[in-house]
Amino acid sequence: MCRILVIGAGGVGVYFSGRLAQAGAEVTVVARSDYEAVSRAGYAVESIAGDFQFTPAAVLKHASEFEGEADYIILAAKVLPGADAVGLLSPAVRSSKSTIVLIQNGIDIERKVAESFPDNRLLSTVAYIGVSRPAPGRVLHLGSGELKMGDYPAGISAEARRLAALFEAAKVRCELCEDIGFVRWNKLLWNLPFNPVSVLAGGATTKQMTQRDELEGLCRALMREVIAVANACGVALTEANAEAQIEYTRNFPAYKTSMLQDYEAGRELEVEAILGNAVRLAAEHGVPVPHMESCYALLKSVNRIGRNGKER
Amino acid sequence: MCRILVIGAGGVGVYFSGRLAQAGAEVTVVARSDYEAVSRAGYAVESIAGDFQFTPAAVLKHASEFEGEADYIILAAKVLPGADAVGLLSPAVRSSKSTIVLIQNGIDIERKVAESFPDNRLLSTVAYIGVSRPAPGRVLHLGSGELKMGDYPAGISAEARRLAALFEAAKVRCELCEDIGFVRWNKLLWNLPFNPVSVLAGGATTKQMTQRDELEGLCRALMREVIAVANACGVALTEANAEAQIEYTRNFPAYKTSMLQDYEAGRELEVEAILGNAVRLAAEHGVPVPHMESCYALLKSVNRIGRNGKER
Repeated sequence: MCRILVIGAGGVGVYFSGRLAQAGAEVTVVARSDYEAVSRAGYAVESIAGDFQFTPAAVLKHASEFEGEADYIILAAKVLPGADAVGLLSPAVRSSKSTIVLIQNGIDIERKVAESFPDNRLLSTVAYIGVSRPAPGRVLHLGSGELKMGDYPAGISAEARRLAALFEAAKVRCELCEDIGFVRWNKLLWNLPFNPVSVLAGGATTKQMTQRDELEGLCRALMREVIAVANACGVALTEANAEAQIEYTRNFPAYKTSMLQDYEAGRELEVEAILGNAVRLAAEHGVPVPHMESCYALLKSVNRIGRNGKER
Repeated sequence: MCRILVIGAGGVGVYFSGRLAQAGAEVTVVARSDYEAVSRAGYAVESIAGDFQFTPAAVLKHASEFEGEADYIILAAKVLPGADAVGLLSPAVRSSKSTIVLIQNGIDIERKVAESFPDNRLLSTVAYIGVSRPAPGRVLHLGSGELKMGDYPAGISAEARRLAALFEAAKVRCELCEDIGFVRWNKLLWNLPFNPVSVLAGGATTKQMTQRDELEGLCRALMREVIAVANACGVALTEANAEAQIEYTRNFPAYKTSMLQDYEAGRELEVEAILGNAVRLAAEHGVPVPHMESCYALLKSVNRIGRNGKER
């Protein structure tokens, strides 16, 4: 029996760990805002891949309440300035037996965790999924639902294979990647331009960002900067990757990015995971990123002022 | 008797031409949206420098109705994409006797007018004033109220002196400038960073833009680009000019820029006069302006989408 502990269980964490439970894993969840609802009735997941009820083996208020050692500790919290990945994991990581799994957005999010838990295997996972959490204990799965996973910084371990097999048993496509770093950067190549620009441009859809001259030009400039920073970090991202993403996005029906949805709902934005870390890596490597810096400064301010005009 | 025709009479145009009428000029106004109200009752100007009633010598629907030749034709329309300065002036410019006076924001706004009316003297005027138009026929003068004026491209003509004397007679401070180009660029040095950033940063005040790390950094980067473009155009703007403006702004009570006020009121923004022309001049001279380009692309989109989400 595979024992799994899930921390930072938003829509993404609940959906994927619920699937692992369907595959036979013993899944314990640390719930925060919806503890009452979930400990009473579990999660109701409405999914385009089939609705299901997910009743965790246990629902905890804090990771320190977990008994014994988990085989996998999944951290799926959003990467927000206040969210301290190491602090969230510490109470649960008791020996080197536990494999840590990050299902999070952005780049360079693994470094601190790897440094803090040097004896633990670390799996880096990128999720391609549309989920929302309309009410406590409820998760709505709207689109996609795939994972790409690999060891950090590179490689595919037996632990990665075992977890991927569990996902596949629950019909969740989980591609194992020798170079998860490249995958993460390739996702950033999309996220970094389109998420911030959709918000800063006054609420632009993916269609407007790939078909409206001025916005497409800005998105391309941002992509060129992502490629330059990636290359400086030893990641072989190319212009062809950018072209492929633009083509794909242009031919896809217009939609609002997740950041624009967050903004319109008054939620905090993942500014640091998507822009802040890239800007800092650029500075470390001496790569000029003026377009990124412009968007970063504006988005930080937008995030702080918020849609309602009240300072965070 | 000095005959003056005012075209594009928004708050700025009405306030200053009303003052000229107080000084004894015969002022005719071409009114558009508030023609009915103004032809019936003139303008009621509430001013911190003293309220006054301004009854034009005539109120016209179109410049072509003007009889004879004006000594001065004042164009005070906002510089918006649809506003065609040459088209607005053409019906009124009948001989080389008329001096054209532009009271408008931005840089490089004189070039087309000068090319189209090569035989007319052209005065370029920069206004430092806070005005709004709360209702048809009403103008509210809230702050400042000074002018700087000079011949385009440079110099001070007798026509400039005569008009300045009229302004001064009505207690409007009008400084004559040998190099109005420098004055315009120095004003852009403030307008270009602070107006767009106040909107794009989610509604930032002047205090936030000069005291919040990320926004001050962006404003400074934009100012450096303005200086580089100005220098390429032969205008001797320096870092010291930028420092002076930042210091001044930081020590001034927090306020909303005019562009932020326009945005919040759902009005169209002067994107081209403030950002578009600077970006185009930069391209002409091969000056890299990535921060400007980022803000220009975003602001164009914001302006088009509008605050209410309805496309223009």
